[in-house]
Amino acid sequence: MKKVAIGVDIGGTNTAIGVVDEAGNVMVKDNISTPSHGDIDKYITDLSDAIKELIKSVKLLNEDLDILGIGIGAPNGNYYSGTIEYAPNLSFKGVVHLVKLLRANFSDMAALALTNDANAAAIGEMIYGGAKGMKNFVMITLGTGLGSGIVVNGDLVYGSDGFAGECGHTTLVPEGRPCGCSALGHLEAYCSAPGMKRTAFELMAHYNANDSLLADKSFRELDSKMIFEAAEKGDKVALEVFEKTGAWLGHGLANTVHHLSPEAIFLFGGPTAAGDLIFKPTKENMEKHLLPIFKNKIQILPSKLKRGDAAIVGASALVWKEIEK
Amino acid sequence: MKKVAIGVDIGGTNTAIGVVDEAGNVMVKDNISTPSHGDIDKYITDLSDAIKELIKSVKLLNEDLDILGIGIGAPNGNYYSGTIEYAPNLSFKGVVHLVKLLRANFSDMAALALTNDANAAAIGEMIYGGAKGMKNFVMITLGTGLGSGIVVNGDLVYGSDGFAGECGHTTLVPEGRPCGCSALGHLEAYCSAPGMKRTAFELMAHYNANDSLLADKSFRELDSKMIFEAAEKGDKVALEVFEKTGAWLGHGLANTVHHLSPEAIFLFGGPTAAGDLIFKPTKENMEKHLLPIFKNKIQILPSKLKRGDAAIVGASALVWKEIEK
Repeated sequence: MKKVAIGVDIGGTNTAIGVVDEAGNVMVKDNISTPSHGDIDKYITDLSDAIKELIKSVKLLNEDLDILGIGIGAPNGNYYSGTIEYAPNLSFKGVVHLVKLLRANFSDMAALALTNDANAAAIGEMIYGGAKGMKNFVMITLGTGLGSGIVVNGDLVYGSDGFAGECGHTTLVPEGRPCGCSALGHLEAYCSAPGMKRTAFELMAHYNANDSLLADKSFRELDSKMIFEAAEKGDKVALEVFEKTGAWLGHGLANTVHHLSPEAIFLFGGPTAAGDLIFKPTKENMEKHLLPIFKNKIQILPSKLKRGDAAIVGASALVWKEIEK
Repeated sequence: MKKVAIGVDIGGTNTAIGVVDEAGNVMVKDNISTPSHGDIDKYITDLSDAIKELIKSVKLLNEDLDILGIGIGAPNGNYYSGTIEYAPNLSFKGVVHLVKLLRANFSDMAALALTNDANAAAIGEMIYGGAKGMKNFVMITLGTGLGSGIVVNGDLVYGSDGFAGECGHTTLVPEGRPCGCSALGHLEAYCSAPGMKRTAFELMAHYNANDSLLADKSFRELDSKMIFEAAEKGDKVALEVFEKTGAWLGHGLANTVHHLSPEAIFLFGGPTAAGDLIFKPTKENMEKHLLPIFKNKIQILPSKLKRGDAAIVGASALVWKEIEK
């Protein structure tokens, strides 16, 4: 029997579902819309139907499948309680008992577990990716926000309430830029994709950079991919965005290292496609801020999860981790 | 048979040794000087002799003792390798294989383990103190430096190399005060006992505070106890030192909470004797910097380890933790 796990990634607009094999390959996948009207009962029905359809379709490919469980990644997902709690970007209000509701439709599944997306990515890296065999590492996801998943002694750190691993909301610059959470100077406000855009606009303002390749883009238009493309063409502003982003990120990671002393830190997400442009200044600045006992010990590595499927794959990894217990 | 453990606390000047019972009471204790000449072989002989003498003397009190092992707390102590590595305040240079050297003289001990002093204090809190039954907490020791020990899922976090838990060397104020480690703006430079003294001198300079009760003390003379005594008498500078120290510490702890989401944070050391003067601003400012999901969840508590014996008791706790495994 071939063992597989189902991964569900709940986003503000769409919910992606996939059946994933032990090597981390997505065999089949589907999408449903995450409702904007907040009707959780209808959503659970739609999600359950979609999962059942997907199971049917994958069994057409291979009858001999052992479906071990469902792993779910969701914003503000709480592993301990199987709930989504006060997620700002979802229409479900308050505390949603997602695992319990889903369990009613999948009583035979060996494992059914939920956590937030960055934690799911960390487990994905550990089960399928570059962190195989590592006992102590940190996963940083760079996107709309800056998420993190922390692994200590081979287990994800959930903390006392299920919400550990919010490195994006540590303070980097006291009284600095407002973060999406409304506090000031958080790492996320500097090193996420929108943070890079803000840095680009600050720099264009500072240098009065009418000659920058980014100078014809509106604030709403500009994204981190455009900054990368401009940097590749040698645009000074764009290059400095990467330098500064790396400096901030490296400093933030040094703070994390001083807490946890991980073997490696994995970076995941759009901005990491820039390769050395972001990895080099990040590594240099992390090293600069480390105590001597930590210097030249900690690797900063690109995630080995495939970008398009990473959220599904990460969520599915939760299942293997549960089965392992 | 009454079970006991031996605790050894290695400091720059003295090494304290004690026999500790299961309740955390020190039955007998002794001191030897930590040599300033760096002769590790002579030190191992002296330490072994002192331990053997102490075992003899405690057996005079109670013949029926089961001595389970020796736990050692030392600066830059590495749990994994049993070594002390490049400790700036000890005369032993490079890497000292303390556990291995001591093992040669105590081959019959069930447990022989070493870690740094703050980690030992965290284990002490877990075994004998206020963290009994807690699975996720952080210990902060305020003294000459700011040490920390992190417990996740009931185990101390040693990280990949044995050196995790250096929260004192996270950056609080970019380009701020020089830390003892020579980097700028670390938490330790603000919230340790010397940090409080520096704040007092900054404030006296700022306010030209000739009328402060602290104004007749030289920089070398002033200590955190004097600041506490002046604050109790209503001295404005001294009171503001506590406000500012608490604000910095609370902010630093918020960064730690965003990593680990602990159930509680324990504060240990001289400055905590000031009670509310330090706990209140620390708690308020930690809360101020927490994401909504963490607010009003995390306790800040005074350590329940007795001050005088805490280092010995903490070190001895390592033994119970080893036996438990």
